[in-house]
Amino acid sequence: MSKHYLALSGGVGGAKLADGLAQLLPPEQLTIAVNVGDDFEHLGLPVWPDLDTVLYTLAGKANPELGWGRAGESWGVMEELRALGAPDWFLLGDKDVALHLLRRHLLEEGLSHSEVAVQLARSLGVEHQVAPVTDQPLRTLVDTDEGRLEFQRYFVGRRAEPILKGLTYAGAEQARLSPAVAAALQHPQLAGIIICPSNPYLSVMPMLAIPGFREALQSSPAPVIAVSPIVGGVALKGPAAKIMQELGVEPRATITADLYGDFVDLSLIDTTDAAIAEGVSGVAVAPTVMRTREDRRALADTCLQALQSLQQG
Amino acid sequence: MSKHYLALSGGVGGAKLADGLAQLLPPEQLTIAVNVGDDFEHLGLPVWPDLDTVLYTLAGKANPELGWGRAGESWGVMEELRALGAPDWFLLGDKDVALHLLRRHLLEEGLSHSEVAVQLARSLGVEHQVAPVTDQPLRTLVDTDEGRLEFQRYFVGRRAEPILKGLTYAGAEQARLSPAVAAALQHPQLAGIIICPSNPYLSVMPMLAIPGFREALQSSPAPVIAVSPIVGGVALKGPAAKIMQELGVEPRATITADLYGDFVDLSLIDTTDAAIAEGVSGVAVAPTVMRTREDRRALADTCLQALQSLQQG
Repeated sequence: MSKHYLALSGGVGGAKLADGLAQLLPPEQLTIAVNVGDDFEHLGLPVWPDLDTVLYTLAGKANPELGWGRAGESWGVMEELRALGAPDWFLLGDKDVALHLLRRHLLEEGLSHSEVAVQLARSLGVEHQVAPVTDQPLRTLVDTDEGRLEFQRYFVGRRAEPILKGLTYAGAEQARLSPAVAAALQHPQLAGIIICPSNPYLSVMPMLAIPGFREALQSSPAPVIAVSPIVGGVALKGPAAKIMQELGVEPRATITADLYGDFVDLSLIDTTDAAIAEGVSGVAVAPTVMRTREDRRALADTCLQALQSLQQG
Repeated sequence: MSKHYLALSGGVGGAKLADGLAQLLPPEQLTIAVNVGDDFEHLGLPVWPDLDTVLYTLAGKANPELGWGRAGESWGVMEELRALGAPDWFLLGDKDVALHLLRRHLLEEGLSHSEVAVQLARSLGVEHQVAPVTDQPLRTLVDTDEGRLEFQRYFVGRRAEPILKGLTYAGAEQARLSPAVAAALQHPQLAGIIICPSNPYLSVMPMLAIPGFREALQSSPAPVIAVSPIVGGVALKGPAAKIMQELGVEPRATITADLYGDFVDLSLIDTTDAAIAEGVSGVAVAPTVMRTREDRRALADTCLQALQSLQQG
């Protein structure tokens, strides 16, 4: 039996590393667990932003400019929604709408979220296993100076402008790991776990809130590596640094060691922040900024080599 | 108080006459009751074909070539549904999808079907009152040689090819007339009721199946006129003639007198069929084929004049 790897991913940054891993590993050797805290229903459409970003990225169909949605997207539905005076705060591309409609259809057929993800991957030509971290509803709620907001209302509707005071991962207590993620954790040849460079509070922590997941990561015999989403004190994408400041946390590259130190063996930070790593154990330095498809593969290769060293060490 | 008129309409043909009436009558003098038997949910979208056809037609936004849907439609969603291998038997234009999404949103806000229709009319710039005949679910089911089919599965999915053996208007027994239609029937100045040239079995009979509606038409002091959908032994649009043959009914112009004789005072048939009308009471002849917008207004004018004669007679 060949080695197996488990990657945890949120949206854009995570999806890029997941794509790098998928370039190096055959489908049967990789499970990509995806955050579901951002999922919501809009105008009756089930929207799963992180899963779609990972699938689109692996399919080579992601929009490189927007950082979300599809390349070559058209906006016929959105234009008409605006003309009709319908809610237009959440942008829906036509190809996105089609995927949401197919998802709705599959859910109505009685498929679990994991089974839906398998079907959507097949429809998009993605061969690797991309699984929602849980099949149960788990929703990130944002407590702000304007009150409690659903995640997309905060993130898209209000452009992450309200001051964040706290986060709630509603439903997490009742959630269980999805079958594919649970199986990957139990895989007899599990050779490594990769925490992709995703927002700790909005992408990774919602997953870790699932009962038993953090403990499983702590007790796993496989080494765990985390790639920091913070480079030079800022997040490459999204509101991570702003959120950390509002929560009173210094946005520094070693945030992954700070937050995941109980189960992460090695934090990988960008060469920009090499000075921080000096004399600090459990932190390694490498180029982590992924501009090209080759950058993704190179970072994935760095991760896999580091995991191999950890396993041998 | 000024005169009021009530029109009953199905899809294309009915919508054209409704548009003619709307050209002649100010909004406060006309209520257009629309069949709901074709309504269904597709990929989670609430689709109300006859209501949309009437609204699009009155808004001047209907697709003149297709006979359904929007003019200047785009197909971004549909193309992607096909690419994804999603169900594609029912065509969804992008503008149509937008309207269905807005409808879904309004239904989720708790609005009744009638209230939703008011909002959609406003969004489309339609000032006349277009009301679903009922706010309750009423679905036309088609018994065929291939078994019982939901209407759209029969009509669109199977192109009305299966041999029809019978029709069921499911839910009709529990349905009540919508407030606007009930109010129009009780209007103290109701000067006429117009049965538009719509398929008797698929558009008009589902409405008449609502308890008390037929009786209300019979006992209304206002005259009732029906415009025949059959011209020269065929239906101008749709499967009416085929259905009638399968039900053992001769598809002739005076079908309206045959089917609605208990409440219709006058059937209007096309000049093509003038010979049939000779010596038959309760049947009048006029050009009923509506090719242009002016044709619609002319036929509407014929109807209103006939109603006035009936009321005076």
